[in-house]
Parts: sequence; C-alpha cells; structure tokens
Amino acid sequence: MPHDPVPHLVIVGGGFAGLWATRALANAPLRITLIDRRNHHLFQPLLYQVATAGLSSPDIAAPLRHILRRQHNVDVRLGEVVSIDKQQRRVLLGDATYVDYDLLVVASGATHAYFGHDEWAKDAPGLKTLDDALLLRRKLLLAFERAEAESDPDKKAAWLSFAVVGGGPTGVELAGTLAEIARHTLKNEFRHIDPASAKVRLVEAGPRVLSSFPDTLSLKARQQLERLGVEVLTGTPVNNIDAQGFQLGDTFVPARTVVWAAGVAASPLGRTLEVPLDRAGRVQVLPDLTVPGHPEIFVAGDLASLMQDDGRPVPGVAPAAKQMGAHIADSIRARLHGKPAPPPFRYNDQGNLATIGRMAAIVHVGKLQLSGLLAWWFWLAAHVFFLIGFRNRLVVLLNWGVAYWSYQRSARIILGSPYESRKPVAPESTQ
Amino acid sequence: MPHDPVPHLVIVGGGFAGLWATRALANAPLRITLIDRRNHHLFQPLLYQVATAGLSSPDIAAPLRHILRRQHNVDVRLGEVVSIDKQQRRVLLGDATYVDYDLLVVASGATHAYFGHDEWAKDAPGLKTLDDALLLRRKLLLAFERAEAESDPDKKAAWLSFAVVGGGPTGVELAGTLAEIARHTLKNEFRHIDPASAKVRLVEAGPRVLSSFPDTLSLKARQQLERLGVEVLTGTPVNNIDAQGFQLGDTFVPARTVVWAAGVAASPLGRTLEVPLDRAGRVQVLPDLTVPGHPEIFVAGDLASLMQDDGRPVPGVAPAAKQMGAHIADSIRARLHGKPAPPPFRYNDQGNLATIGRMAAIVHVGKLQLSGLLAWWFWLAAHVFFLIGFRNRLVVLLNWGVAYWSYQRSARIILGSPYESRKPVAPESTQ
Repeated sequence: MPHDPVPHLVIVGGGFAGLWATRALANAPLRITLIDRRNHHLFQPLLYQVATAGLSSPDIAAPLRHILRRQHNVDVRLGEVVSIDKQQRRVLLGDATYVDYDLLVVASGATHAYFGHDEWAKDAPGLKTLDDALLLRRKLLLAFERAEAESDPDKKAAWLSFAVVGGGPTGVELAGTLAEIARHTLKNEFRHIDPASAKVRLVEAGPRVLSSFPDTLSLKARQQLERLGVEVLTGTPVNNIDAQGFQLGDTFVPARTVVWAAGVAASPLGRTLEVPLDRAGRVQVLPDLTVPGHPEIFVAGDLASLMQDDGRPVPGVAPAAKQMGAHIADSIRARLHGKPAPPPFRYNDQGNLATIGRMAAIVHVGKLQLSGLLAWWFWLAAHVFFLIGFRNRLVVLLNWGVAYWSYQRSARIILGSPYESRKPVAPESTQ
Repeated sequence: MPHDPVPHLVIVGGGFAGLWATRALANAPLRITLIDRRNHHLFQPLLYQVATAGLSSPDIAAPLRHILRRQHNVDVRLGEVVSIDKQQRRVLLGDATYVDYDLLVVASGATHAYFGHDEWAKDAPGLKTLDDALLLRRKLLLAFERAEAESDPDKKAAWLSFAVVGGGPTGVELAGTLAEIARHTLKNEFRHIDPASAKVRLVEAGPRVLSSFPDTLSLKARQQLERLGVEVLTGTPVNNIDAQGFQLGDTFVPARTVVWAAGVAASPLGRTLEVPLDRAGRVQVLPDLTVPGHPEIFVAGDLASLMQDDGRPVPGVAPAAKQMGAHIADSIRARLHGKPAPPPFRYNDQGNLATIGRMAAIVHVGKLQLSGLLAWWFWLAAHVFFLIGFRNRLVVLLNWGVAYWSYQRSARIILGSPYESRKPVAPESTQ
C-alpha cells in the first residue's frame, strides 16, 4: 500500500473521534496529518455553558497543537477540507492545495440543521461552535438590556420572552440555565424590569423531552424544568419562526429570542465520498467503520451512521465518537503489523446523563436511574473529569464553585458594541 | 438648580473615572444614571494579557450592573452618548433618545490614534477594547499558522516577523509577551517552523522606551526586553505601514503582523462640549475638573487635560482616573450639603510600574526603583489586588500560577473560522 516507507494517515477533524484516533496511534509507525479548520479541540458537552455566560471559551477548548505537542508522528494542520478524491487518494483544501493519503479518517462531525427552513437561522441561531456560543450569549444578554430600555409593555414582554426549540440535551440545558439566569443571576441588577418575570419556553415536537432516556426519567426532567420556571410545550412542532416570535400550531407566541436546538445534519464533506448516506446526510459505514469498496477510508463520530444489533443507531454522543476513534486506531495498528482485524465495532453504552439546571440532572447508567441533586453531582464529576487539561478542570471547578455559592455567572460580557455592527476581521491574505 | 426634588446626575462612561465617581456617591441624595456603550467595566491594564492569550475576556471585565447591583440610587443604562447639549442640559444618545441632567460627569475615555494615518489601522490594529484584544489574539496566533503552512522561506520569515509600534507600557508589555510566546509557549508545537526564530521588534520614535520612568529604569527595561529576545529600535519614527511590513527611515522591514501602541486620542464626545481642547482632543478642565462657565459639567479620566503644579500634565493612567472620579464625588457631595468646595484637584502620584514579560518589570515609587523579578512580583500583587471581583482575582492568579510553571497560555483559542469571514451578528432591531 504505501509508496512511502512510512504510510501517511490523514485525519480530518479534531473532535472526539479524530483526536481519540490520533492519540491512540501515538507510537504507531505512521505519519499522521490532523487537519481541522479550527485551532482547537472543543469540549462540546459544555458549550451551552459558554452560551449562558457560565464559562469562557478557553475553559472548554484547548489548542490541538498543544494537546499533541509531544506526539511526534503528528503534524497538525489548520485547514478546511472541502472534498475527498477517493481515486487519487487525496483530500482537497479550501485554499486549492491538497494532501495525499494512504489511510484516511473522516471525522468532520455535524452542524445544526433547520429541516428545510434555513430562513429560520437568522432568528433562531443554533449552537455548535464557540462562535455560535458567543453570538448566543450576546443575544441573550442584550435581550434583557432591550427589555430594560423599552417603555411599551408589550414590547418589553416580547424581549423578556425566550424560547428554546428542541427538547434534547442541549435544549434542556439551555432552557434550564436561562430560567436560572432570569430568576437568580440577574436579581437586583435592573431598575425597570424584573428579570424573574421572563418567560422561558422549551418547545419539543415529540411527546416528551430527553427522549433517549426512559419514560420515568424523562418525566422527572420535565418536572425539574418546571420547578426551575420553564414552560415545557410538547407534542406540537414549530411551523414558523421570525424576528417577533414563533408559530406553534394555530398560536403565535411573541418571543424576541428563539434558540434552535432541534436538529443536526452531518458535515457536507460526507457527500463528497460518493457512498450511501442516511437521511441526515451521514455516511453509512460498514461494521469496521470503513466505506464500501475503500478499506483505506474510515468514517467516525457524528458523520458515521451505523446500526447496533438492536436496530437502533449508534448515538451521536461524545463517548460513541471516542470509541469509534479508538476502534479505528486498533484496526490501523492491526494492519500495520499484519495482524487480523479486530472484531466489528460495537458501541459500549456506558450510560446517559443530562443536566437541567442548578442542582438538577438525570442519569441513566445500566439499571441505575438518578435524578435531582445526586444526578447533578454525578454529571458534574463526569464532565469535569473528561475535560482535557489540568488547568481547564481547575478553572471550571472554580467557576462552578463560585457560581454555586453566589448564583453568579462570571462571563456575562457582551462582546462587540451593541451600537455598531461588529468590526470585521482584518483581511488576511494567505500569500 | 434641581427642578426635581432629587437632582439627577448623569455619568457617561463606566471606566475607572466614571465607576469610581459612581461608587463614591453611593449614599448621596441623588438619582444617578450611568451610561456606557458596553455592559462591562474593563480592567484595561491587563488588556494586553487577553490579546496575548494569557487571560480570557471575563477575567478582566465585570458587568457594570453586577458591580452596582446594591447601589440603589444608580440606574445603569446601555447606550451610546453621541453629543452633549449644554444649554438644554441633556445628553443625546445614538438611538435618538436623550437624557436630561442636573449634573454631568463626562468620562468617556480615549481611543487609539494614528496621527493622521488612519489608513494604517487595517494593518496595525490597536488595543483599547476587548474586541480589539480578541482580534489581535487571532492575528498573532494565525501568523504562526500561516508561517507553518508557507513553503517559500521569505514569506515564512515575513509571517514570523512581528512589530509593535510604540514604546509605552502597552507596547513594552505586548513585545515582551510576544517574545515569550515565540520562545517558550509554542515550543515543540510546530513541525515546519521554529517559533523561537520569530523576530519581535519594538519600535519607538523617541530616544527611549517607557519615557515616563527615570532614565536608569528605562534602560533596565530595554535590557530586560533584549534578554527576552526583543529587538528595540529607538529614535526613528515609522513612516509607513502596509500589509507587508513597515518603513523605518530608509529601511523597509517585512512584517506580516504589526501592532499599534503608539498613540491615543480623546473620545470625540469632548468636542461636542464646545470648550477648549488640547492637541490630543482632551478637554481642558478647570482645577475643580469642571469646564469653563458650566460648573454642573465635570470631565474626568483620559478625556480630561489638566496641568500639575510642575507643568506636567496629569497622566492618562488608572490611578489618576480613579482620583478624579473620587474628587468629583467630593465636590458634588459638598454642593448637595451646601458646604464649601474641596480644594482643587491634585494628582497624587503613587508610583509607576510596568511589566515587561515573564518575571521582568520595573517599578518607580517615590525614591524606590526596582527592576527584574522583585519588580514583577510587586506589579503582580498590585494588579491582582486592584482587579474588581473576588472570582476574577482567583481565576487570574490561578491562570498565572499555571502559566508561571508551564509557560502555557490558556486562552490560545482562535475565534471565528480562519476560512470564512466572521459571521455577522444577527441583526437586532431595537423596536
């Protein structure tokens, strides 16, 4: 296979799948090029905390170069892969350069999707990147400022009306935290509004929130949300969103701030592989995580679509992505040493946990089902433990310690002037 | 004077001068409206640390509403004051509303200035706001990425060539920290460049850096900069800057990254007062910090121009701004209680300190002159002590503790995709 003495592995994407594959191949006789269009690995499970001003960006992100500085077989490259040429075995980058590979791992993830309603994007931003989170933070904080400055009572109420569309983990976390901010964090800070009078609605088209959990936990989650002050609306899909609010069945609900947490679509890079995709655009991988006819191409993480033995898909969660990355590393190592391939990939479900707000969460691990305070401690420990980097863990714990005591959220900084359009980034040529 | 039973004091600007005046009037029989176009007070002396990825934005900023939440005579208003109508006694805001005052404090600060060369702004950004700092951080970190990706040796060298224009405290801090990043922080992280080969130049038109310090300390600062690897170029002004580099006398120096730290100009709001200004656009205040003919209007902080008894101007530093704010509060309190006015404002120079880089600083307090490690500890203690907020101090100390041990800078996150122009902020109407 290799024309070079040492085969060249290209990994596209430094998320959980790509980074775990890279690290598991630290001592393998390979040249690895890890390409990502961001300079950092992002701990996505805590992204909602950046959006809601509890953490700052560097708390949940670490430069890929730094994480991998001691792994000498890796070359980290900042670049945007725009397509894959299976015949020539090369990936093409946005700056019209290309990188040849002997082995390829595509782990470029997912983005949020509006199910054919891209026109909703401007009024209902989603949450996938740090930039999304900072934009959302700005929008949430400015809504209270606008309400404070508004004299018309209906307009004031519309600025104090928030909706989160989508009752999955991200939607639940956002709605719960927003209610906490309105009721506690902003207490006493305004003179012309009572932030606690803000309405926070969580809208889910399906019959229940957190539907990947058992019914009983899902119900507990709803109760905890309601206790925090969130109005949970299930069973009716949103059929329109604009700058003034959203349409739910026959009812128009005024809301100046709507957040989209309802759907994801796979990275468009999957399409350029020209192999079968599922409805969400994910690549239908073989049980060894390669694509049909191309054993040198692996797909992992949120971009991969694979059924489990029980007929349910492997979920798009961080543990599944890490396990896929590690499994691909095993396969590659076996090939390099002429050993038999490992058994087909199987997702090892280590449990499911979601946080709802201050001291509220649900946990489902095997037969264990927890909710409330105990679940929240469990969630906290797991998330801080899995954060990359000693410094991040300390700072995140410290931030949460202070937040727990004081209800304060330290990152309530509106970036960009509210009165000018944001300064454009200075033009940077690559020449 | 008051038509209202309680006089209305409007304070424009929540920097050191405005915030200190506000807090000193906590128990005064006044209605205070504090107007700022940002939602936060910024600890500007540490802004260079955000630009150089040592701290994150919330570490050095705190929401004004939060700082003042328990001061019930204050209404914090997010707004941009665009002009002042002395006759009608009102300030006009950018959204075409206005606010009437009985007493006014104008403390809208300064911005960076290019001395008639505004065309340099796009290639040599300055550093006054958090947005400036994040833009600069992005530019600095991307320069190393571009160098890594570049194959042409001359272009590679130009990406690894950095210049800071202006040898005042900000310029010295930026140059010293940049040299530290190149030599230590990025060590081992790149495969196609040696970051330590980066050239960092500090360009000062005058004969020496940190000219507000005595000659001997200024020389020590220069030596410490050179020890950190900074090339210090004094005595020649920059006469052009473009995307490729800068012109120094007859020499063109290639440098893809130039930072402007050479000049400040007062906020344009001063002009709308229609009173005498100095050359930098600052308002020439009377010794009681009011403007001629209008005892109800005070000007403070970087916007105020006042000579000391020795003929030197009060410097544009945080302690002077705080002292002015407190002095104005004294004057206002005296008037409210029908007592004689306090004596004219006198700047109490408590000393001068500047940091240069890791473990390097200079301190001048009365007859005490320190440089090196001891000065650095002095600087650290003073800066952390003056940071607002318990949490900020802890987090900043923790970040610095980790940075000290490891040479790491935790906030090395490039925001905004390097491959798209930054997403515009979603349009927000105020209606």
